[in-house]
Amino acid sequence: MTGKHVLALSGGVGGAKLAAGLAAVLAPEDLTIVVNTGDDFEHLGLTICPDIDSVTYALAGLNDTVRGWGVKDETWQAMAMLRALGEADWFNLGDRDMGMHIARSWRLRAGDTLSQVTTRLTRELGIAHAIVPMSDAPVRTQVGTAQGWLDFQRYFVAEQCRPVATGVRFDGVPGAAPSPAFAEALARDDLAAIVICPSNPYLSVDPILSLDGVREALVRRRVPVVAVSPLVGGASIKGPLGKLLGELGRPVSNASIADHYSNHRGDLLDHLVIDEADAADAGGLRERGLSVTVCPTVMCHAGDRERLAREALIAAGIETG
Amino acid sequence: MTGKHVLALSGGVGGAKLAAGLAAVLAPEDLTIVVNTGDDFEHLGLTICPDIDSVTYALAGLNDTVRGWGVKDETWQAMAMLRALGEADWFNLGDRDMGMHIARSWRLRAGDTLSQVTTRLTRELGIAHAIVPMSDAPVRTQVGTAQGWLDFQRYFVAEQCRPVATGVRFDGVPGAAPSPAFAEALARDDLAAIVICPSNPYLSVDPILSLDGVREALVRRRVPVVAVSPLVGGASIKGPLGKLLGELGRPVSNASIADHYSNHRGDLLDHLVIDEADAADAGGLRERGLSVTVCPTVMCHAGDRERLAREALIAAGIETG
Repeated sequence: MTGKHVLALSGGVGGAKLAAGLAAVLAPEDLTIVVNTGDDFEHLGLTICPDIDSVTYALAGLNDTVRGWGVKDETWQAMAMLRALGEADWFNLGDRDMGMHIARSWRLRAGDTLSQVTTRLTRELGIAHAIVPMSDAPVRTQVGTAQGWLDFQRYFVAEQCRPVATGVRFDGVPGAAPSPAFAEALARDDLAAIVICPSNPYLSVDPILSLDGVREALVRRRVPVVAVSPLVGGASIKGPLGKLLGELGRPVSNASIADHYSNHRGDLLDHLVIDEADAADAGGLRERGLSVTVCPTVMCHAGDRERLAREALIAAGIETG
Repeated sequence: MTGKHVLALSGGVGGAKLAAGLAAVLAPEDLTIVVNTGDDFEHLGLTICPDIDSVTYALAGLNDTVRGWGVKDETWQAMAMLRALGEADWFNLGDRDMGMHIARSWRLRAGDTLSQVTTRLTRELGIAHAIVPMSDAPVRTQVGTAQGWLDFQRYFVAEQCRPVATGVRFDGVPGAAPSPAFAEALARDDLAAIVICPSNPYLSVDPILSLDGVREALVRRRVPVVAVSPLVGGASIKGPLGKLLGELGRPVSNASIADHYSNHRGDLLDHLVIDEADAADAGGLRERGLSVTVCPTVMCHAGDRERLAREALIAAGIETG
């Protein structure tokens, strides 16, 4: 293998941490971070892209590590005024975060693509690595419930994931192409590995895989695909993955993660990185032909993110400095 | 005269203070405050209405009395982020103020008129009195300069009124009708007085007078028109009025204010309220047929605003409780 370019697929918080780790150990020209946009939504006239923002804030060092989302040193004055004005306040928007949504929204409305806007705004924040939306077409994740299909943020934020999920779908696919930079990364001669970040496979990674031609391109690939499991100790650290797996009739275990990436539409996965708390899962995963790394996967500090990034890259046969 | 409804015409800061004074001494059903929208502009995808906001914040008690504009206890985090993202920062927007612009902008984009949006947002802030945009059609004040016609905010904020003004025009008129509530107030049977607040006659009041049919309706009116002069001690307290008068070849004096409201298109004015520092102007004004009140017109506190409101109403023959 002569190439050394890494394509990372990321959702929000957990994915953003590993993406930041990869950016810390790989040169900008050696990494493309493709980010889920299935969680994006229009709210109060603004286009909000939670996962792009999580990755952007993590790479810019602006992410709030205590709250776990949004911008650090955040204030909430605009939201207080919106509330006083009788506007919807179920989705909390910080003031600095609001600056991002305003900048993005007006440029999209002026005719720029989400790819163009994302490149511009991340560059302005001093981010040298490529953060790329999965698609410039709107794809919207929806969760099936007894109330019908709920838009993702309605399910995730307004309903706090309380409804029992009966399914997940992505409005807009088929018909949504990968963004130009995503398609270009998939086709690179020097592509050396694909890293699936520890994001929710159903809600955050599947939207990426569901884009026109992406799953097929990944199945055909000749480079290792390494996923970092979002489970730790048989549970999800954050977010609804554990609950969702149960509701979809799957065990909350790494076997379900492996199953998910190796279904009837073709095996995607070569390697799974699992947490040391789930070391007992390794044997079963290896029996089904996966190679496995067992290591700490909880990322509290920059050092944790970099160490996990190196583990994923080692699993893919990539050397880092 | 049996009616007791007062129609106030207001621009931004100075006008907003008197509007708040009028609202303090008149019942909601007895006052319609029509506000200049010639300063409105689109910026970063938001519709910003500086004069409506000044009046709204003043009536809601949210106005910053130290800075003299915007919302009190304001923070500037969204703007800091916008600056970090490389966006235009020549027009400073506070976080709470931003909440107002976001609420207004998305509702306008959803199809509400500016009148509908203004009614909704002022009601939500607990304002019982009617704050009414002068028109639902876009009228944009522009200032002629050696660089050509500048949009008002470009002249006023970005250029800090430095260019020599050669003229003022209102893009969008003729062709812009008064807003429904403005037209309704002009036609009320119980209309008892019109109060022109101490705003810049050229930049803030003229846009209102330039709307289709408004000047004619005012000339035909059978109720007193009382203006409160924006000059104090032969100068403008705030804003470019003094500079502008000089550049337009007019003396910086109350005679120019009176001239402005009594030009070839008909006499508008019955009464001028002038500051005690300009008491010497009273004789000349009376000689030309105006009645004159001389009193303190600087409004620092709520008491000042109410006292001046009462002076204006007394001049119009209106009794207040």
